[in-house]
Amino acid sequence: MLGADGLTDTSLTEAPAGCGPILPPAGRIQRPLRQQVFEHVRAQGRAARADIARALCISAGSVTALTADLIAMGLLREVEGAPLEGREAGRGRPPVALEIVPDGRHVIGIKLSDERQSAVLADFGGRRLADAVLPAPARRKALTEALDEVEALVSRLREQAPGRRVDAVGIGLSGLVDHRTGRVAWSPLLEGEDIAFKQAAEERLGLPVHVDNDANVLTLAELWFGAGRALPDFAVVTIEHGVGMGLVLDGRLFRGSRGMGLELGHIKVQLDGALCRCGQRGCLEAYLADYALAREAATALDRDPRAPQSPQAMLETLFREAKAGHHAARTIFARAGRYLAVGLANVVQLFDPDLIILSGERMRYDFLYADEVLAEMQDLTLTKGRPPARVEIHAWGDLVWAQGAVALALGMLTDEVLGSGS
Amino acid sequence: MLGADGLTDTSLTEAPAGCGPILPPAGRIQRPLRQQVFEHVRAQGRAARADIARALCISAGSVTALTADLIAMGLLREVEGAPLEGREAGRGRPPVALEIVPDGRHVIGIKLSDERQSAVLADFGGRRLADAVLPAPARRKALTEALDEVEALVSRLREQAPGRRVDAVGIGLSGLVDHRTGRVAWSPLLEGEDIAFKQAAEERLGLPVHVDNDANVLTLAELWFGAGRALPDFAVVTIEHGVGMGLVLDGRLFRGSRGMGLELGHIKVQLDGALCRCGQRGCLEAYLADYALAREAATALDRDPRAPQSPQAMLETLFREAKAGHHAARTIFARAGRYLAVGLANVVQLFDPDLIILSGERMRYDFLYADEVLAEMQDLTLTKGRPPARVEIHAWGDLVWAQGAVALALGMLTDEVLGSGS
Amino acid sequence: MLGADGLTDTSLTEAPAGCGPILPPAGRIQRPLRQQVFEHVRAQGRAARADIARALCISAGSVTALTADLIAMGLLREVEGAPLEGREAGRGRPPVALEIVPDGRHVIGIKLSDERQSAVLADFGGRRLADAVLPAPARRKALTEALDEVEALVSRLREQAPGRRVDAVGIGLSGLVDHRTGRVAWSPLLEGEDIAFKQAAEERLGLPVHVDNDANVLTLAELWFGAGRALPDFAVVTIEHGVGMGLVLDGRLFRGSRGMGLELGHIKVQLDGALCRCGQRGCLEAYLADYALAREAATALDRDPRAPQSPQAMLETLFREAKAGHHAARTIFARAGRYLAVGLANVVQLFDPDLIILSGERMRYDFLYADEVLAEMQDLTLTKGRPPARVEIHAWGDLVWAQGAVALALGMLTDEVLGSGS
Amino acid sequence: MLGADGLTDTSLTEAPAGCGPILPPAGRIQRPLRQQVFEHVRAQGRAARADIARALCISAGSVTALTADLIAMGLLREVEGAPLEGREAGRGRPPVALEIVPDGRHVIGIKLSDERQSAVLADFGGRRLADAVLPAPARRKALTEALDEVEALVSRLREQAPGRRVDAVGIGLSGLVDHRTGRVAWSPLLEGEDIAFKQAAEERLGLPVHVDNDANVLTLAELWFGAGRALPDFAVVTIEHGVGMGLVLDGRLFRGSRGMGLELGHIKVQLDGALCRCGQRGCLEAYLADYALAREAATALDRDPRAPQSPQAMLETLFREAKAGHHAARTIFARAGRYLAVGLANVVQLFDPDLIILSGERMRYDFLYADEVLAEMQDLTLTKGRPPARVEIHAWGDLVWAQGAVALALGMLTDEVLGSGS
Repeated sequence: MLGADGLTDTSLTEAPAGCGPILPPAGRIQRPLRQQVFEHVRAQGRAARADIARALCISAGSVTALTADLIAMGLLREVEGAPLEGREAGRGRPPVALEIVPDGRHVIGIKLSDERQSAVLADFGGRRLADAVLPAPARRKALTEALDEVEALVSRLREQAPGRRVDAVGIGLSGLVDHRTGRVAWSPLLEGEDIAFKQAAEERLGLPVHVDNDANVLTLAELWFGAGRALPDFAVVTIEHGVGMGLVLDGRLFRGSRGMGLELGHIKVQLDGALCRCGQRGCLEAYLADYALAREAATALDRDPRAPQSPQAMLETLFREAKAGHHAARTIFARAGRYLAVGLANVVQLFDPDLIILSGERMRYDFLYADEVLAEMQDLTLTKGRPPARVEIHAWGDLVWAQGAVALALGMLTDEVLGSGS
Repeated sequence: MLGADGLTDTSLTEAPAGCGPILPPAGRIQRPLRQQVFEHVRAQGRAARADIARALCISAGSVTALTADLIAMGLLREVEGAPLEGREAGRGRPPVALEIVPDGRHVIGIKLSDERQSAVLADFGGRRLADAVLPAPARRKALTEALDEVEALVSRLREQAPGRRVDAVGIGLSGLVDHRTGRVAWSPLLEGEDIAFKQAAEERLGLPVHVDNDANVLTLAELWFGAGRALPDFAVVTIEHGVGMGLVLDGRLFRGSRGMGLELGHIKVQLDGALCRCGQRGCLEAYLADYALAREAATALDRDPRAPQSPQAMLETLFREAKAGHHAARTIFARAGRYLAVGLANVVQLFDPDLIILSGERMRYDFLYADEVLAEMQDLTLTKGRPPARVEIHAWGDLVWAQGAVALALGMLTDEVLGSGS
Repeated sequence: MLGADGLTDTSLTEAPAGCGPILPPAGRIQRPLRQQVFEHVRAQGRAARADIARALCISAGSVTALTADLIAMGLLREVEGAPLEGREAGRGRPPVALEIVPDGRHVIGIKLSDERQSAVLADFGGRRLADAVLPAPARRKALTEALDEVEALVSRLREQAPGRRVDAVGIGLSGLVDHRTGRVAWSPLLEGEDIAFKQAAEERLGLPVHVDNDANVLTLAELWFGAGRALPDFAVVTIEHGVGMGLVLDGRLFRGSRGMGLELGHIKVQLDGALCRCGQRGCLEAYLADYALAREAATALDRDPRAPQSPQAMLETLFREAKAGHHAARTIFARAGRYLAVGLANVVQLFDPDLIILSGERMRYDFLYADEVLAEMQDLTLTKGRPPARVEIHAWGDLVWAQGAVALALGMLTDEVLGSGS
Repeated sequence: MLGADGLTDTSLTEAPAGCGPILPPAGRIQRPLRQQVFEHVRAQGRAARADIARALCISAGSVTALTADLIAMGLLREVEGAPLEGREAGRGRPPVALEIVPDGRHVIGIKLSDERQSAVLADFGGRRLADAVLPAPARRKALTEALDEVEALVSRLREQAPGRRVDAVGIGLSGLVDHRTGRVAWSPLLEGEDIAFKQAAEERLGLPVHVDNDANVLTLAELWFGAGRALPDFAVVTIEHGVGMGLVLDGRLFRGSRGMGLELGHIKVQLDGALCRCGQRGCLEAYLADYALAREAATALDRDPRAPQSPQAMLETLFREAKAGHHAARTIFARAGRYLAVGLANVVQLFDPDLIILSGERMRYDFLYADEVLAEMQDLTLTKGRPPARVEIHAWGDLVWAQGAVALALGMLTDEVLGSGS
């Protein structure tokens, strides 16, 4: 029964209808304590049992039992006399510490890209044992062709690190990737749509494969190996062939309620604006991504469209010309910078993050994060006396993406080995 | 030590540096089981002990102990012979059920607004016992004047429900409100900035007060009393004097990492665009909110600016004219609809919610959610074969906001009475 | 018969089809020499017969005959011993010069406006004999009410200059005015559309009446009494309640091929842009005119729409605030300035004038023609080494418009008295 | 001395200062009657002396004298028994008519273009005697290289029509061309800026050369050989590698007050909009010209920028895809159409022409002038009950431009042979 204002009018019902969320905020499924112990040790590098007990708020007895289990499983080991971070080199002999058995498991992380593919082989402690970069023809590919490239990378890594069993593979690629199902709804790298990528890759490699959007794997690289390790909440924004975003909330990657959010490159910043390669108009990406800058560069630099050039080469020339004072070249970066300011301001208005990390190779183009850009971003943000959002620039090298795919695989593998299901 | 690609190169260190988040995803602090039992009963209206055990995955013994505690605290009570929802009216005598003691506690919810203030008094079960609406002068006010209005509402409710002890007050108002500190950074209703609203209200009323952005209290109304009760994730978008948004993730309100995100009205959708009352240009609100439509209405309807009119009255006339076919009036709604489509598409691209609820009085202006608007929203969204985001329209009456403020107060009070601190 | 490329193929026809314009460029109907002599004397103030012969390239005999005619008609008279401009005060007695008989004819010029009406009575030499300014209610009026105001002005002038016969009246008003037919297609001052203004005014006054767009009369003021007297080609741009433009080509007002061009205020500078009072979107005027600035001012200054204010008062406050550093107030003028730069650049690109005169009261708002505005205007113009278009600012007082309407009436009256028809 | 309102206050001066334009509207220099007779005959194809007298309002005696002169000069000749247009085949013998001696003079018209050069040789009556089209490398060229191509065309025409003396050459090319000085300030076809094109071409060819902007020569084609022959006023708008415009006022080409106006392609229709090849942003051309469509086509069609393609080929593919329903391809034409509507509406608002002719090869892309485009153009125009501007589509073939250059040369040659100077 609805009252005049459309709310349920409970005053007339005999039994109370109840109020509040019917599904309680279950939160994330609590990970088993055993897993929490293992992850604490891995995060610290080494940890004494007493430190573990203190950190996880559990009894010394529980720690003893849980670590015994993990040692028996071959996942942890004792190490004596090792200096422990954060501990005074005190009197008496140093306590026995624990560390993980790094070669208990191995994973491979792969980044698929436009012009080259890169991969990293790491142990269960996240240490890189081998890496490989292979050039690739810069065009859309059939799935089988992409998997040929994946297989070639895996072979190359196996050759470099013979005898290591690989337990899981993580793959990051641009496009609309559903991490949960492993399907690729659309990718600029692949022909076709709605591709069962994970399944096909698992069949090809005979290994568990986890796929994700490349901005997400970049964010995992920051969360597992970079500045994000000590932060509960942060955002990563990256510009390349597209514009990507990743978000960490409470120490975990947030992928949107249905798993495919954070598509910052495709928020609309101009009605009926510039054409995006997704086919829509006015996407942020259509003002910022490589292809967007390159198509204006061709106009600015008066390039003959019959003389082909890769977007990267075009951008390099554009950057050089802008540095040398070429007016139209400068307006291209200036405009891109203003739209980046808009994109970042919108991230701040909606997510209010502690930190935004601007990451990726394009950060070499310093026009994009010039003081004016960051100042405009702050101007476009309602602060009203609050401290403005912090912004950091991380001009990572190429392997960071593959390292992020390593983190993807490590996380999934750890869940599998130690999670509630085990 | 950094490797060539800027990542920490661990191969050379003796002790492993560790990887992965240093702060584990603690998630939300687990609420005490006792609180979970209480909230389950309140959500169900009534529940048998066996149902509680099943729902919370705890033993019958635990339930017996916990409910005994809650009964002793005067928060739950047994009720016999009551029909239970979802239970067949079976053979034998119905089991003893539990329900909360509704008058164990009382709360007041208040919505401060432009032209009138509204309030609801409810018991601990969320049942509305009294409500009040008072007209208010439509202009910015000093804090003390606003508190006069709050006090008048509280008195009015106390008169209607004499003898009820009030334990907490929730207040929703538009602007930049920091729920955690209770400070109002800026509000179109108040003079000044960075106002210690919560503190001043507590001193005035002698009661615990919780304040929040009005879009958040509207979202709580949906989560506690509306369509959101059964949904773990949903977004609420509302258009009024401003454009607001609330987001529920995992059954809890998400306010942004630093507590003041979700400012959908101030995302930028046009560089150097229309002027927003926040002083910036190109905010979504500057194309959608009452004042934005009203200022174009004055042009479209050729109103003499010397003949004053409230924005609401102007909008009513505009709507009537548009319905009657007035060309410029129609373009105003059409443009607002297109920008609403942009705003909703951006919400979908970033949060990928299951459901977006369009809520608030302005939903009477059906142009705003005409088929074309929703179709354009879907067109502006990358779906690639995925089901589009669902959209529902809730044209709530006026008291829904105050009801949401009730939910705010109830939630805080429950935490206080039964949370980890207790 | 058409050839392959669609042109008439004349090679197959027996008789030549001819080529070139069938209507020869008749140019403007050559004014009779007598009129040319009269206008030369009026323009010079005084002229000796020899100077006339030299200026018009006619024989001394012709000048003698023509001036005799004009003297007989009571339009010219001899004046002795007068110093002549441009002539050395030489030896011997100064030659006999001619000047017009100023009180041979009289005209009235009227400007209808939003808040006050102004009028000037002048003799046939353009000398102002009387003027009047009357306040007027600021709202659209019925034609008869507007004519009441016109009649009141005429009476007032007659009182000031009793005994002067008035031969013609010129009236300037904003809107779409067809000078040739005297009909007003639309005016912000008048109720209704397609109004036979000239006819009604002639009936009311019993005098010949000529009407024109107010930007045109302002341009005539420059051409007859201002900086334009010595220029064959120039443009006038004015900002007030609307944005107007006038253009002089070869010493004559150009009104567009069909008589109603030069509507600079309604060129579109933004697809789906701000709403114009004409009902369309994206007109230049919708970013520049009084009403456009005033509606943003209400937002910027947080004015209560229920507290009415005239646009002019609003603009005064806005200007004061901007001068004092108010951020949003400054963005309003800054944006208006950028759009003015766009409008002026478009004028340059299309008409390539020698000079643009920015005229009107709004030129007091110096933000509008700040150095940045004029620099941006030049930046937006293809110059490629040519000298940029000159811009002058004329902050005329109020009577200049009525003076322009005097010029309108004088020109028409001269044609009538001395033109080919006479 | 200035009065309170800034106008010269004449009341205090002794001698009248004069009013009205000091430079009388000299209009265009009246062409000699002899030239008018010649042009009338050329325009009619044939004309009897009595018709000439009637058309030019001169006496039979004058006609007899003037035609005798022209016959003596070898420019006109008598022709007997010829049917005259517009004359009833009446009783009695047909009167003697006059026609021009076509091979009295010859001219060449040339259009320089991106991918091919075209030329026409015509007699003094405008009849085409030969034509030539030569392919050209599609890139900017040095002046000498461009003149090589001009010379090759001239040679080719001379071979086809041996023994004809050529008296003048007209050349049309895109860019900023100053017809009066013959200098090219900038052209997309030529390297460098401010090029003394006319002078260099005259030295190379040993012939008088006249150069003009290609939109102007296209307009002359309409005025001399097309629909414009019978119209005193019309505008021509053309889309190709750029967007051009020509305007005829009173039967003569209007090139702007300083000779380089009518740059419709470079009016600004969007602040900070798309990049134009002129280096500025927001030019109409940047949304309409070949290069603008082609760069979006590369995005829409997902073309590899490393696989080169000419803009024309890209446009052909785009058009085919749009016809087949490709969504993004259609949005490209749809957007171009909307901007064309804006450009045409602005032409109407400023020039108020009787007729706009949309001309050029691109008119094959019928999306550009679809009913929606023309309807939007009318919607964007203030008509208020007046008949809307007429629009015609002329999908001329290639030689029309060269034919327009013929008209340019013919007009200049006629002035030279018969003008006031002769």
